[in-house]
Amino acid sequence: MRTMNDSSESTVEAVARRARDASRVLARLSGDRRNEVLTAAARSIEANRKEILQANERDCVAAERSLSAGGITRSMLARLRLNDRAIDEMALRVRDVANLSDPLGRRLSTTELDKGLVLHKESCPLGVIGIIFESRPEVIPQVTALCLKTGNAVILKGGIEAAATNQSLASVLQESLRQFREIPVSAIELLQTRSDVGELLALERDVDLIVPRGSKELVEFVKQRSRIPVLGHGEGICHVYVDGAADIRKAIDITLDSKTQYPAACNAAETLLVHETMVRGFLPQAVMALKNAGVELRGCPRTIALVGTDAVGRASEEDWAKEYSDLILSVKIVATLEEAIAHIQRYGSGHTEVIVTEDAGTAKRFMEEIDAAGVFHNASTRFADGFRYGLGAELGISTSKLHARGPVGLEGLTTYKYKLYGSGETVAEYASGKKKFKHRKVD
Amino acid sequence: MRTMNDSSESTVEAVARRARDASRVLARLSGDRRNEVLTAAARSIEANRKEILQANERDCVAAERSLSAGGITRSMLARLRLNDRAIDEMALRVRDVANLSDPLGRRLSTTELDKGLVLHKESCPLGVIGIIFESRPEVIPQVTALCLKTGNAVILKGGIEAAATNQSLASVLQESLRQFREIPVSAIELLQTRSDVGELLALERDVDLIVPRGSKELVEFVKQRSRIPVLGHGEGICHVYVDGAADIRKAIDITLDSKTQYPAACNAAETLLVHETMVRGFLPQAVMALKNAGVELRGCPRTIALVGTDAVGRASEEDWAKEYSDLILSVKIVATLEEAIAHIQRYGSGHTEVIVTEDAGTAKRFMEEIDAAGVFHNASTRFADGFRYGLGAELGISTSKLHARGPVGLEGLTTYKYKLYGSGETVAEYASGKKKFKHRKVD
Repeated sequence: MRTMNDSSESTVEAVARRARDASRVLARLSGDRRNEVLTAAARSIEANRKEILQANERDCVAAERSLSAGGITRSMLARLRLNDRAIDEMALRVRDVANLSDPLGRRLSTTELDKGLVLHKESCPLGVIGIIFESRPEVIPQVTALCLKTGNAVILKGGIEAAATNQSLASVLQESLRQFREIPVSAIELLQTRSDVGELLALERDVDLIVPRGSKELVEFVKQRSRIPVLGHGEGICHVYVDGAADIRKAIDITLDSKTQYPAACNAAETLLVHETMVRGFLPQAVMALKNAGVELRGCPRTIALVGTDAVGRASEEDWAKEYSDLILSVKIVATLEEAIAHIQRYGSGHTEVIVTEDAGTAKRFMEEIDAAGVFHNASTRFADGFRYGLGAELGISTSKLHARGPVGLEGLTTYKYKLYGSGETVAEYASGKKKFKHRKVD
Repeated sequence: MRTMNDSSESTVEAVARRARDASRVLARLSGDRRNEVLTAAARSIEANRKEILQANERDCVAAERSLSAGGITRSMLARLRLNDRAIDEMALRVRDVANLSDPLGRRLSTTELDKGLVLHKESCPLGVIGIIFESRPEVIPQVTALCLKTGNAVILKGGIEAAATNQSLASVLQESLRQFREIPVSAIELLQTRSDVGELLALERDVDLIVPRGSKELVEFVKQRSRIPVLGHGEGICHVYVDGAADIRKAIDITLDSKTQYPAACNAAETLLVHETMVRGFLPQAVMALKNAGVELRGCPRTIALVGTDAVGRASEEDWAKEYSDLILSVKIVATLEEAIAHIQRYGSGHTEVIVTEDAGTAKRFMEEIDAAGVFHNASTRFADGFRYGLGAELGISTSKLHARGPVGLEGLTTYKYKLYGSGETVAEYASGKKKFKHRKVD
């Protein structure tokens, strides 16, 4: 266990307690003050560019050695390596977050319970956020900016292969806090060893939310171990359903974009469902367009019978439940809208589901009945993204239904409290009938 | 395992799967249709009053036998017993829920991403809710009404001592569904044995939320076992802090009301914190008023030194962390606002915290820094309640910070989905710069 602070105690418990104390200070900072902190952080990243890149070079040298020994993969190494442009990008992203409107102190509702007794439901910080991530060191400035903007303290735990880079980045960010004398440096904490993770996940009293960022395996590991609520990226098994009343041009464009625009993304489509009346008009054209784009197809028996084994392989039961994250698409012909919906409910991951149709009634049924974070009518699955949605920032995409669903921006790092302002009111006066509630909604 | 349905499979897994199927039907009912279902349920309760009371009589006879054998307590028996008025009250409560405005299909935000590409964030049902409760059979119509109003299927598990009453009530409610031909009866399911609970808590794929209603022990048991998110009543360790700038009349009224208006409630105060400058003006009067109201006091050493051992007992370390749920109050003198805040953060349960002061700046600091579902200025803790807040219904009070915090009404049983309406848009057009996002907030 190493932390970046000069405080004496360095158990994970002590780290979390210090973060909790810091969170109370952050909770009372004004929005302007929080933005000053972010601006200082961005400047600090730029000013310490050399130190950060040197630390990164040490990680890369070690990683290359590990690469030849088979310890890490070439793509992990690529994600690890920083350069001047990456540093600029980090600082830019932090400034972008500073420019977003203040997520705190928003009045979600105001009710006048009675004359002089007013209730506000108001957004406020969660408190302490734990972020567990792999490889990419740019996660540090990015999530630290999101946490500080929302008045939360952050405890970071990165991958061991980026240890020097992470340490350098966390130090730079902590140093930038020192000019704000009221803010404890422990608003940003870094953990470095794997065993710290297990300890962190048990500290339900001092940590309010855990955000795992990385592979499906990491997210699963964290979810299973954590006693703290977890806000996790889910799997993305997204479908495009081409209805009998689809416009063929739109159907082909949407299918291609959903699969090929960035196949590694969680919002890429994995399965194409085609209504049986579209097997002549749409299917052959779609197959040709997909093949031209380099997509491997795996079809149901009817698809194979129609298109031929040259163009389409056989989809196994596992294919329907698989997130390929690659240029592979499974294809199934369905007889009815109900069959399409049933297939999606069975195999979908609740991420994003698309219907292509010109029939408003069919679209409505799909949009109501499909239980997913995103239901799209005549648009690509790839629009499911915090920036495209206009949230201005994205912490991740949640396939959980509670707290935050779909692309999660700053709001996912806040909660709310009820503030009641009175002038000595007691419940006894209302229980006795002496006074009566008005419950007037003010907004 | 017994269920009320005539379906052949009766494993908990099969019950949950049927509830999931039913939830898809509920999700597409209009608000009017859901209200018709509630009105029919209320009528059905009234029409079957005799059967329900007979079943209840059987439970009460068995409970009385168990009472003499020491199996249950007298207060459990009192909570179990129904009469004509209780039946009327049940029906009335269901009609009250029908009269609330529709919690579904509310547009939480609308953003025009680009011309013709519009994103709605819209409230929708969670899906399937599991309710685990003790004793009081009126929980069944009450929570079933809340679930159906929010388009959710419900799986109920009550206490064994109310088995006949619960079975009768669930049957009556299920029967009332039969007149709605599109709605499966499995929208309401009843489990009866204790072993079913363990199975239910593992069915994360078909159950979206678990709501335990009952003792602290029940809530803890469910939280520790469940793989499904739990929305639970928390402990209520609420404080009243009487600041140095408090109005003494208000301070006494609020202290008395917070402790004595209904001491068994989770929003009753357990600890009184008094600023040291108030030990002459406020403390003696408060002690007298509390003693006159029958409240036992347990004080810190300074309180005892000031008030005397006749009036105040000694508070142990455990007292500060205890929910008395009784006419007992611990009292502590603090030197500063900071000391009061630190005490609350250490021992409070995040439920409801009150400051009594005429100083706006002090109140503001308290309201910002205290991390609790409710922070009140010059009002009794007892206002922390869904009905008093004007929510119209209360599922419970949450001390968790995620999803729902404080008194939870219908909103806590909903989630949201993003509905995107396009006309064939692809992300490639935006990535290439051919098109640009507008991100115009429509509301």
